[in-house]
Amino acid sequence: MRTLTVNLGARSYPIYLGRELLAQAGEFIQRAGCGEKVGIVTHPKLAELYLPILEESLKRTGFRVVSVIIPEGEEHKNFASLSLIYDRLIEERFDRGSCVVALGGGVVGDLAGFAAATFLRGVPYVQVPTTLLAQVDSSVGGKTGVNHRAGKNLIGAFYQPRLVIIDVEALRTLPPREFVAGLAEVIKYGVIADPKLFALLEQKLDRLLGLDRELLVDVIATSCAIKAQVVERDEQEEDYRSVLNFGHTVGHALEALTGYGKFLHGEAVAVGMVQAAAISSRQGVCDETSQRRISELVQNAGLPTEIPSGIEPRELIQAMEVDKKSLGGKIKFVLCRGIGATQFVWFSAEEIVAQLAGE
Amino acid sequence: MRTLTVNLGARSYPIYLGRELLAQAGEFIQRAGCGEKVGIVTHPKLAELYLPILEESLKRTGFRVVSVIIPEGEEHKNFASLSLIYDRLIEERFDRGSCVVALGGGVVGDLAGFAAATFLRGVPYVQVPTTLLAQVDSSVGGKTGVNHRAGKNLIGAFYQPRLVIIDVEALRTLPPREFVAGLAEVIKYGVIADPKLFALLEQKLDRLLGLDRELLVDVIATSCAIKAQVVERDEQEEDYRSVLNFGHTVGHALEALTGYGKFLHGEAVAVGMVQAAAISSRQGVCDETSQRRISELVQNAGLPTEIPSGIEPRELIQAMEVDKKSLGGKIKFVLCRGIGATQFVWFSAEEIVAQLAGE
Repeated sequence: MRTLTVNLGARSYPIYLGRELLAQAGEFIQRAGCGEKVGIVTHPKLAELYLPILEESLKRTGFRVVSVIIPEGEEHKNFASLSLIYDRLIEERFDRGSCVVALGGGVVGDLAGFAAATFLRGVPYVQVPTTLLAQVDSSVGGKTGVNHRAGKNLIGAFYQPRLVIIDVEALRTLPPREFVAGLAEVIKYGVIADPKLFALLEQKLDRLLGLDRELLVDVIATSCAIKAQVVERDEQEEDYRSVLNFGHTVGHALEALTGYGKFLHGEAVAVGMVQAAAISSRQGVCDETSQRRISELVQNAGLPTEIPSGIEPRELIQAMEVDKKSLGGKIKFVLCRGIGATQFVWFSAEEIVAQLAGE
Repeated sequence: MRTLTVNLGARSYPIYLGRELLAQAGEFIQRAGCGEKVGIVTHPKLAELYLPILEESLKRTGFRVVSVIIPEGEEHKNFASLSLIYDRLIEERFDRGSCVVALGGGVVGDLAGFAAATFLRGVPYVQVPTTLLAQVDSSVGGKTGVNHRAGKNLIGAFYQPRLVIIDVEALRTLPPREFVAGLAEVIKYGVIADPKLFALLEQKLDRLLGLDRELLVDVIATSCAIKAQVVERDEQEEDYRSVLNFGHTVGHALEALTGYGKFLHGEAVAVGMVQAAAISSRQGVCDETSQRRISELVQNAGLPTEIPSGIEPRELIQAMEVDKKSLGGKIKFVLCRGIGATQFVWFSAEEIVAQLAGE
C-alpha cells in the first residue's frame, strides 16, 4: 500500500492507494477519527458489487452503517438526490461526528461530498473512488457540488475529505469505456505537468488498458501527486489551479450541449484537449510534434478527438459563457506549451470558437 | 463610524458600524474588491424602504445591480428561495468575482450567505443587517444555511462575508417586537461574557428601547466584539463556540415545535435563557441573585420567560434530539456561572426536560 498526503494545513488528509483496501476501510476510517455512524452513498450496481465488503469492514470495526442508494448517472447529480441523502441522515439522527462515505465515481463523490459539506454545516467525509476518473481526479482537491439545469457543478463547495481510499481492484468491474474515459485525465496530467508520465503512457498504453495492477498503482499515484501539488498551491482556484482545466472549457461545453448523455466526462475532455492543443499550436506556444503526440495518444487510447459535426458554433459559445470559469465575459483558457507546461490566456467564447474553426 | 475586525486569518473581515452608512455602501463594497456585478437579496418591505438608497450608492460607484426579492418569514428560508437566487444569478451571468449582498435580517442573511457559499463554489458576500438580531448575531461568524422540514438550519455552511455594514438607522423602521427580540441576544452576551454590558442593559433599558442612537452603537459594537472573540477562538464550533448557544437548546426546540410561527427567534431564546439560568441554579453553578437578575432583565425588556403550558415534555425531547448540536445522543448544554461566565454540561434531552420540570 502507498500513502500520499495532500498538505492543506488543518485540512490535510491522506490518500491510501493499493490493492484490496476496501476490506480494511473500517480501520482506516476509525483512524481518521469519525463518530459511530457512517452513511455510505453509492449506486445500485456498486452496492451489489462492493457494499457487502465495505459494510462488513465498517461493522467489524464497530460502526453503525446506513446506506443511501442513488440512481446512476450524471442527471441524478441534483437537488433531488441531495434531498434523499439529507432525509436519510436526519432519519438516522446523524450528528456532527457522523461520517459520509462516497463509494463510487465522480457523481457519487461530488454529491456525497456536497451533502457532507452542507449537512449540519459540515460533517466528516471519506472518498472511496471506484472509477479511474474519480481515483485520479475528483478524489483529490475537495471540489463538491451538484448540477443546475443551466450548467454542470454550478452549485457546490470546496470541502476536503478526511481521507481517500483508492482500491485499484475496483477497476476490474469498471466498464472499459469508463476506464478509457478516466485515462483522458491521466493524459491531461502528463500534458500539463509531467513529460515522463506522458512518455510512460505512450510506451505502456497496452499494459495499462490490460489493467496491469502495478502500472495502475504507479500511474494513479503519479496523477494524484500532481493534482495534490496543484491543489496545495491554490486550493480554491484563485489562479493557478485552473491549469487542471486544460481541455475542460470545450469539454464542459460539449457535455452541456449534449445533455450529459452522449459523452462521458473524460471523452468530452479528450476532445477538448486535442482542440486546446490545436489552439495552442495556432497561438504559437505548442510545437507541432507535441500537438501530434497529444492527438495520437488520445486517439490510441480509444478516445474521441473531434467536435461532432452536428454542433453549431453558436451553441458552443452559449454553453461556454455559463461555465463558472468565466469572469467579466472573458474565459481563462489553458494552452499547453508543448508537453509538461501550460500558459493561461483570456479569450471570449467567440474567440475560442473562431480558433476552433481555425480562423 | 466605528470599525471592528473579525480576525480569521485569510478570511478576516471588517464590520463598519454607525449611522447612515447605507448611502456609502458602494464605496465600502468597492474597497472590498468585488467584481462589477452585485446581487442584492432582500424582502419586499425592506426593498421598499432601503433598496433605492442602496442601489443608488452601488450604481454611483459603478456596479451593475440586480435585486432578488424573497418573501418575508422563516418559512421561506428554504430550498425554493435558494433556487430563486441561483436562477437569477445564472440568468444575469454572475461570475466568481460577482458579489451577493444580504439586505435584511437573519433569514435573508442566512439564505443569501448560503447562496453565496455554494454558487460557483463560493462568491464574495456582504452583509447589510437591518434587524437588531442580525446586527449583533448572524452578521458575525459566518454561519449560513436553510431550514429543513425536520429542523432549523440543518443544511448550511460556514462561510465568512467580505464585510459587514451595520447602519443603526435601519432600526427605526424595525417593528418594536422584533427590536425587543433582538435584545434577547444582547442580554445573552452579557450573561455569557460581560457583566458590565449586563449592568448597562439593566440601567439604560429605557433609553435603549427608545432607540438612543449613541447607546445603540455602543451596545451593538460590544455585542459584535464579544461574538467576534468567540468566533476567532473557534470558528467552526468544534468546542468553545457553543457558549453562544446559551438559551438556544430550549429556544430552538420551542421554535421547531411551534412551527416558527408563535415565537420570534429572540423570544424563544429569551425563554430558553431564563430556563437555562434556572437549570444552572439547580445544578449549583449559578447563584440566586444572578438567576433573578437574568429573569428580571428578560421580563423588563418585554420578552417571554416561560414555556407555554400547552407544550408536552415529550415533544420538547423529540425537538431537541434533532437539533444539530447533539452528539451521540447527548446534548451539549450551556449553563451560566452567575453573570459573565459559562460552563458546558452534557445532558440527554430527557434530562433537560426533567430539569425544566424541576425534578
